[in-house]
Amino acid sequence: MIQTDERYMALALELGRRGQGRTWPNPAVGCVIVNNGRIVGRGWTQPSGRPHAETEALAQAGAAAKGATAYVTLEPCAHHGKTPPCAQALIDAQVARVVVAVKDSDGRVSGKGFQMLRDAGIEVSQGVLAAEAARDLQGFFLKTEQGRPFVTLKLATTLDGRIATATGESQWITGPEARRAVHMMRARHDAVMVGGGTARADDPSLTVRGLGIERQPARVVVSRRLDLPLMGNLARTAKDVPVWLAHGADADAELVRAWEGVGARLLPCDLEGVHLAPSSVLQALGAAGLTRVFCEGGGALAASLLAADLVDELLVFGAGRVIGAEGYPGVGAMGVERLADAPGFELADLRRVGADVLSTWRRPT
Amino acid sequence: MIQTDERYMALALELGRRGQGRTWPNPAVGCVIVNNGRIVGRGWTQPSGRPHAETEALAQAGAAAKGATAYVTLEPCAHHGKTPPCAQALIDAQVARVVVAVKDSDGRVSGKGFQMLRDAGIEVSQGVLAAEAARDLQGFFLKTEQGRPFVTLKLATTLDGRIATATGESQWITGPEARRAVHMMRARHDAVMVGGGTARADDPSLTVRGLGIERQPARVVVSRRLDLPLMGNLARTAKDVPVWLAHGADADAELVRAWEGVGARLLPCDLEGVHLAPSSVLQALGAAGLTRVFCEGGGALAASLLAADLVDELLVFGAGRVIGAEGYPGVGAMGVERLADAPGFELADLRRVGADVLSTWRRPT
Repeated sequence: MIQTDERYMALALELGRRGQGRTWPNPAVGCVIVNNGRIVGRGWTQPSGRPHAETEALAQAGAAAKGATAYVTLEPCAHHGKTPPCAQALIDAQVARVVVAVKDSDGRVSGKGFQMLRDAGIEVSQGVLAAEAARDLQGFFLKTEQGRPFVTLKLATTLDGRIATATGESQWITGPEARRAVHMMRARHDAVMVGGGTARADDPSLTVRGLGIERQPARVVVSRRLDLPLMGNLARTAKDVPVWLAHGADADAELVRAWEGVGARLLPCDLEGVHLAPSSVLQALGAAGLTRVFCEGGGALAASLLAADLVDELLVFGAGRVIGAEGYPGVGAMGVERLADAPGFELADLRRVGADVLSTWRRPT
Repeated sequence: MIQTDERYMALALELGRRGQGRTWPNPAVGCVIVNNGRIVGRGWTQPSGRPHAETEALAQAGAAAKGATAYVTLEPCAHHGKTPPCAQALIDAQVARVVVAVKDSDGRVSGKGFQMLRDAGIEVSQGVLAAEAARDLQGFFLKTEQGRPFVTLKLATTLDGRIATATGESQWITGPEARRAVHMMRARHDAVMVGGGTARADDPSLTVRGLGIERQPARVVVSRRLDLPLMGNLARTAKDVPVWLAHGADADAELVRAWEGVGARLLPCDLEGVHLAPSSVLQALGAAGLTRVFCEGGGALAASLLAADLVDELLVFGAGRVIGAEGYPGVGAMGVERLADAPGFELADLRRVGADVLSTWRRPT
């Protein structure tokens, strides 16, 4: 029974991950409905966060939901929001049992979904593959509990940690397979974020290309003074794909207006010394609804996030080249003097991607 | 038959590798003697390069060598040196067939070993697992053909390519498993080499510890001015384990005498601008008999070897820490301005070592 539960929950998790990057501000949940050993419904949170996974799976199951077991990666919602509560939908469909991976931490739901189900005589099990679900949904939990999104930092460096030559040449350090993998990673996040220096130096598009996705991640640039190219790729396309600018309250008022004029969303943030406080930037992004942010540098933004202990996952692409110490560092100055103060990460995955290496590191638990 | 040949040759290669780091100036060769499907002799080049692998294997085989097949990783020698030629020994033992991986490139042997064997009526096959053997014996070939040893460069860095904090703290960036692996790597090389900066900063011993080996690698320090601590670990132990100092002809004569006094071997080398020319240093090491050198940095020496295209294998230990741009870079200034000029390597192996990552990169073929 436990093994069967885990098998169906693993499937529900897999389905849930299909929504990552497209469901914010809602969590990307997965649901599988099983009747008598047969999968009668599968669902995941739809783009923009509605319909919910349970609604999708119940619609597919129809009458076959009666007496069935529903596997849901997150506690079904119990409150009337823009949709009726999923707990009620499961009750109405007369499922016999609900298996959940993790409890919701949203105060409007937490524990209440379980209570509604139990009050209706439905058997409830929880904690199946809880660790995996907590990881997949970590961005949603962080937003609910700490007000900030999950942060993935990507570095694509040479063997000696450089992201460009002294003259600024950076295209391309990694190979085509690694660059394609980056587009897939972007698609699984709500937003792609870079610092102002990268926006100026590379004039990037920061869109997901070649994957035919329905909803592009928002594009966030962190720039205290908004001294960014108003004729560049981001400004030019801001009406098609969202451009959000995290800036200091002291940014030039005309630049603020100019960026509003091209369609950007302006997010004033607090300073910390002469720089934008990374915690303030992330709070602003969390308040705007983001649950998962993919930071692609440059060195200064990476360093400020790392120094503030705001990086949850670190993806390091390593290319088989060496540039030497004149090159741009992938991580800028952090003020670390003692090794014991250097942020540490645990290796979660290691693989080849084309001619390059990809190592995945997580904040120690 | 071919598959059988490869199987025995793979064993001979494995045996040959046991000698790596201990046989210089001779190559580390392996030999297996097979009679009627039974292995009757196994040998590898002994410490200091004698007896040769064939001698060892033939002694083990005794009378069973008659009519047998001998698998040797390198063409048997044909010249009378400090030992009688191995080709003659194989003839005297009346083996029926000799299978060789690669031809020797030493002018005194090349092709002549084969000729001697054939003249005696022995069947000779060559080229079995030739690529693997060429890689294992590359240091010997490089010394013979180019006058320099094979160079392995080891880097042990943080995720952002740093080897120490701004204050010089470097112990330990990698974990105990990685450090133990480094001792095993040292043991498979003829010498361990560092730059003067590392010798001053870390006062290293550069010995192989914890593995009970018979012959320590020589310890080479590259220091133009010989401004190294005369009271340090290297000076103190120079009479027990060789210390070789590659220095500029303009080094202070008193320092030269002082280092000779503690037992170091002095190797005057040419300059290239204000630095020692890495090619001159490697020629001096090759002339002294070294076939495999393990360079452990620091950043300046690593950069000069890389810039001169003198690194054959690059071993990168990556630890799950980030120090930031104030830290010491693993590779110093190289003068690379364009990405196309950045030295490139091909990934040969990728693995976890304890909590760290080890990637092995080779010069493209």
